[in-house]
Amino acid sequence: MADYREIDTGKLRLFCEKIFATYGFSAEESRDITDVLLRADLYGIESHGVQRLIRYHNEILSGLVDVNGKPEVVHESPISAVIDAKKTMGQLAGIAAMKLAIAKAKTSGCGMVSVKNSNHYGIAGYYSNMAADANLIGICMTNSEAIGVPTFGRQAMLGTNPIAVAMPADPVNFSYDAATTVVPRGKLEVYNKNGKPLPEQWALDATGNASTDAAEVLKNIIAKAGGGIAPLGGVGDTFGGHKGYGLGIIVDLFTSILSGGLTSNYVNITPGLNGICHCFMAIDYGIFGDKNTIKKNMSAFLQELRDSKKAEGRDRIYTHGEKEAEMMAARVKGTVPVNEKTFAEFGKIAAARGVAWEW
Amino acid sequence: MADYREIDTGKLRLFCEKIFATYGFSAEESRDITDVLLRADLYGIESHGVQRLIRYHNEILSGLVDVNGKPEVVHESPISAVIDAKKTMGQLAGIAAMKLAIAKAKTSGCGMVSVKNSNHYGIAGYYSNMAADANLIGICMTNSEAIGVPTFGRQAMLGTNPIAVAMPADPVNFSYDAATTVVPRGKLEVYNKNGKPLPEQWALDATGNASTDAAEVLKNIIAKAGGGIAPLGGVGDTFGGHKGYGLGIIVDLFTSILSGGLTSNYVNITPGLNGICHCFMAIDYGIFGDKNTIKKNMSAFLQELRDSKKAEGRDRIYTHGEKEAEMMAARVKGTVPVNEKTFAEFGKIAAARGVAWEW
Repeated sequence: MADYREIDTGKLRLFCEKIFATYGFSAEESRDITDVLLRADLYGIESHGVQRLIRYHNEILSGLVDVNGKPEVVHESPISAVIDAKKTMGQLAGIAAMKLAIAKAKTSGCGMVSVKNSNHYGIAGYYSNMAADANLIGICMTNSEAIGVPTFGRQAMLGTNPIAVAMPADPVNFSYDAATTVVPRGKLEVYNKNGKPLPEQWALDATGNASTDAAEVLKNIIAKAGGGIAPLGGVGDTFGGHKGYGLGIIVDLFTSILSGGLTSNYVNITPGLNGICHCFMAIDYGIFGDKNTIKKNMSAFLQELRDSKKAEGRDRIYTHGEKEAEMMAARVKGTVPVNEKTFAEFGKIAAARGVAWEW
Repeated sequence: MADYREIDTGKLRLFCEKIFATYGFSAEESRDITDVLLRADLYGIESHGVQRLIRYHNEILSGLVDVNGKPEVVHESPISAVIDAKKTMGQLAGIAAMKLAIAKAKTSGCGMVSVKNSNHYGIAGYYSNMAADANLIGICMTNSEAIGVPTFGRQAMLGTNPIAVAMPADPVNFSYDAATTVVPRGKLEVYNKNGKPLPEQWALDATGNASTDAAEVLKNIIAKAGGGIAPLGGVGDTFGGHKGYGLGIIVDLFTSILSGGLTSNYVNITPGLNGICHCFMAIDYGIFGDKNTIKKNMSAFLQELRDSKKAEGRDRIYTHGEKEAEMMAARVKGTVPVNEKTFAEFGKIAAARGVAWEW
């Protein structure tokens, strides 16, 4: 496993904000992008956190991200909108779109905003939790570069296409955020680094058969030589792989089809355009009755799940969002573990942007 | 495997309608219930089709289904409603609720109707397809008796909790309809009848460990002795079981929590009340732009998925709803295979209800 060092969360936040400001983002924009990015590390989702800084750095310099692009509402109704993100940072498109969905939900009971021509936006759960923090149900999805293989196929056609759903509850909100593939690409990379075989149902080789060879699968993904990651439920349909495949299509429906943007199989292949698409929904659950009662019933149900009988050898059943909330509480005023490789990248980015490099 | 006989679809429809009329349902109600029931057989989903007639017969006679119960709207907004189904047949509650969701979508762009105190309603896909037939996006979910075990648990707390999503497309609509458990209970019963071991990740024994013993798992489910079916993604979290577990919670949120009804873990355990809850959503995708363009883009994307490269040994990639549409086209004016056991039950029901028994 890679080595890590603990970095003060406040200093890390300030460093990222300074870096983003050097590209021309305003102070508020830099804070927003950093908040999404760092939230992943606070939740314990390293793959979507500050280790992506180098990728964003490269995408901004290459023009895939347009620092001057301003998201524009191109279609609108009292409960819906389509936004052309104009190649801005995905985080800025995402925050703007979810704010619009929340405003519509507060006025009309629900808001659904589909976004095209965007970029990687971090964790879907950040945006669904924005709605939950506003005491609404939040839903968020995004498509991404095709890496998921349809059931009975051997060609990656769908992104990891995560779905996030958040609902206010005590003592901790329900917050689901998961790829519709078995795993995201980052998990394959960890197995590859450790030289370990993949679990049986995670990935497919170039012929479309199940593969446990992480190195080969990753090589084929990069070369677009065939194979990739299996949909949630695994390879074939015995374990429900056709279900994950269908959920991935549903994500493309709400993100790329409704916005008129690029479907997963066209994302990240056009020169100069990533073209990632998202969808943001907020629902004021007060349109179904007394909000206190509904929230209380949700809290009680989640508690019953946590209190239900444990499997042999297990002493805890989680509900979704619990682990992340606990991790964040511990890290937000403390430190975040940063991979040494990522830390070295910080040094290069700092030098390139003329930002002081001191921890 | 069980033996089957082919029965004329028209005659089967007429027989079911006659039976339902004997309980006191109107001609229209009997037609509606039968249409939902038979649709499952036409789609090739035997588990939810006319083989359930005996269960409905028993539930009507025992009072779990109230023939005189009329669904009542107990809360309403321009885009939402809560319906108390008053223990009517799930099919009648379902059709009424989706009609209301469709009407709201046509007026306000979207309609969301959550239903409590209902009964088994057949296939979720029937209702999502009602919306697609009205040129809308349709979403439908239902909770059900707890049979699914939370990740790291050994106690069934969630129903099979299916999610159905339909979207108009040419030449065939997209129509996803799948349990959020790996499989529905019926699949375990088929393995048990055939004396075959279950695939590895389908089920859990009373201790919460993976089990391939169909007979033991089914015995424990009936005795509520622990164990049950794994969430989509399997036992534990290696293959994403925590994702299926979360999707099951989301279904309970939209069905039982928003309607104020019984969550899965209380369904079918209160004497005299099944208490099943559903949710129906219709979205006019015209609120996102030109409907013809959106539908055309969806159709093209589905075609690209079907045309993508096949796995070794496979010659076809399906999109969801294709198999069912083909099966229905073949069966609707022809015959439906009916299990001999089911056929024998028809005889008993016919005798009990005084309906002519002639094929």
